[in-house]
Amino acid sequence: MPSWAIGIDLGGTNIKAAVVDEAEGVVDQDSQPTDAEAGPEGFVRQLALLASEHFQRGSEMLDPGTFAGIGVGAPGAVDSTKGLLSYPPNLPGWGRYPLRDALQSRLEQAHGLAAPILIENDANAAAYGEAVFGGGNSFRDFMMVTLGTGVGGGIILDRKLYRGPNGTAGEIGFMIIDFEGESVHAGVRGTIESLIGKQRIVELACGMLDDPKASPRLMELCSLNPSKVSPRHLEQAAKEGDPVALRLWQRVGSILGVGLANIVALMDIRKFVIGGGIAAAGDLIFEPALMQLHRSTLPSMHEGLEIVPAKLGNSAGVCGAAALCFASGHPLRSDD
Amino acid sequence: MPSWAIGIDLGGTNIKAAVVDEAEGVVDQDSQPTDAEAGPEGFVRQLALLASEHFQRGSEMLDPGTFAGIGVGAPGAVDSTKGLLSYPPNLPGWGRYPLRDALQSRLEQAHGLAAPILIENDANAAAYGEAVFGGGNSFRDFMMVTLGTGVGGGIILDRKLYRGPNGTAGEIGFMIIDFEGESVHAGVRGTIESLIGKQRIVELACGMLDDPKASPRLMELCSLNPSKVSPRHLEQAAKEGDPVALRLWQRVGSILGVGLANIVALMDIRKFVIGGGIAAAGDLIFEPALMQLHRSTLPSMHEGLEIVPAKLGNSAGVCGAAALCFASGHPLRSDD
Repeated sequence: MPSWAIGIDLGGTNIKAAVVDEAEGVVDQDSQPTDAEAGPEGFVRQLALLASEHFQRGSEMLDPGTFAGIGVGAPGAVDSTKGLLSYPPNLPGWGRYPLRDALQSRLEQAHGLAAPILIENDANAAAYGEAVFGGGNSFRDFMMVTLGTGVGGGIILDRKLYRGPNGTAGEIGFMIIDFEGESVHAGVRGTIESLIGKQRIVELACGMLDDPKASPRLMELCSLNPSKVSPRHLEQAAKEGDPVALRLWQRVGSILGVGLANIVALMDIRKFVIGGGIAAAGDLIFEPALMQLHRSTLPSMHEGLEIVPAKLGNSAGVCGAAALCFASGHPLRSDD
Repeated sequence: MPSWAIGIDLGGTNIKAAVVDEAEGVVDQDSQPTDAEAGPEGFVRQLALLASEHFQRGSEMLDPGTFAGIGVGAPGAVDSTKGLLSYPPNLPGWGRYPLRDALQSRLEQAHGLAAPILIENDANAAAYGEAVFGGGNSFRDFMMVTLGTGVGGGIILDRKLYRGPNGTAGEIGFMIIDFEGESVHAGVRGTIESLIGKQRIVELACGMLDDPKASPRLMELCSLNPSKVSPRHLEQAAKEGDPVALRLWQRVGSILGVGLANIVALMDIRKFVIGGGIAAAGDLIFEPALMQLHRSTLPSMHEGLEIVPAKLGNSAGVCGAAALCFASGHPLRSDD
């Protein structure tokens, strides 16, 4: 009998929450602004209220007897075993915080709800969501890469989440592919994120627009102000055949392809699920990435190489966080 | 009760064979030139004879009742499940060859020996050898990197060999860290092997000796012929304080450190065991590598970073190949 769970995706701007059914996926979903000012305690109150409301809503639609728990995807370093969140980015002043236990107490005391709670890194949760319900559903082993403000990732091996010995695996954004290059991010030179993070893509485009005549269309889209050019503009211009925008996505895709090639060489993973806001450019990125992936790997490793789009969009995190709670009978149970 | 096994390391130049006791390690070891000319069939005859002789020798010292089998480490792509060897480098004309079954038949028919046989990639076997008997013995998770003519590797996760979905994991030599650089190896640009493979190290040194006065000591060691300079010369000169040789090892170590940083970011592995002929330079490489590893990773990933030398030298392969045969009670059993 399928169970259901609540998935929460804890972002610096918004908190998303969903009721997720093992068979149906998301059956109810909600988002509200994060009250980052309230500090951890105020935040836990917000979180507990949200979870409790979703438990009520879920219980009206689904059998409360098959409720599996509450999964929370959170940014930064997460110790799933201890339920600790450490120095989450975008949530200043949190330090090292026992989120699981704090949420558990608050839920019991203020809402009379006793439920198993799991805390997981948000990129890992998103990867697991794509594994269970999304673009990675048919793959036994794959890497999910999220292209957005940052470049993040999560690894699924044998249909389970691969966390690594310290729980920090999957940081493809910090993979170095240009060790003597100019780009630096978070103090590390030549990382994937320094080369194709959103900010860098915009900077690249700005540089290409130094000559305003290079792309009249892009200039028009950004209202003649190159510093206002956005990935959305670049996507639109490229789809209209604009050469500057096409060249830019070509480069972004090639760089992604080099990063994926390193994953093939090291981990022998050959399937990639790509999500995040930047990935909305789709084949503009995926095609050059796949070509570069072939160029950057040995022919003996070409069999089975595949790059597919993520399917769950912004819901990947809540889906994955919830799915981590499903009963041990679930084929994707990760903590057995 | 500890068991024992025969480990064979199949190289293009030499075949090594050893009797390996689960508790004691290597108790008897042998090496003979590879008869590459004889083709697969002749080669299997040579291999079967060698295995049979070692079984005799082992049986005189150890209890034949606890004999666990024969493990073979072989170059190139190995399908352990099917016992297939595919296009082994340095063994031209082999194609795709069912080494396990061929060896099994020959052993039974010509020597009356029926034994379980396991085939494994040689770099994986060496990593497993270091895990069971060598430098990685105290690590639950680590990567073994072999620096020699090529740069290879093997990954141990949770004390088991990580082969990857297709059995080709661990190819750190093909990791790209300089995607727009000049160095190319096997058609791929900017790989670790293209940057610090033995040939490249010698080329780098030659380049530095363009000015013969830059290092009188190195010129002396290579008999005034820069094209004859060897890693051994470079090691000796560096240990005597020669600035050219020191600069060269500094660079080799830094490049290795960048590669290791990528493994930390991606797999969250923080322990590294370094072996192979080039690694004889020891701290000349390890110290700059560890410094670079810190520079190239986030502070949140620095805890537990460690680089240690391999301990088994040329015996890692035979030890690991044999250890893969040990009974399922063994904590390092890889195929459970």
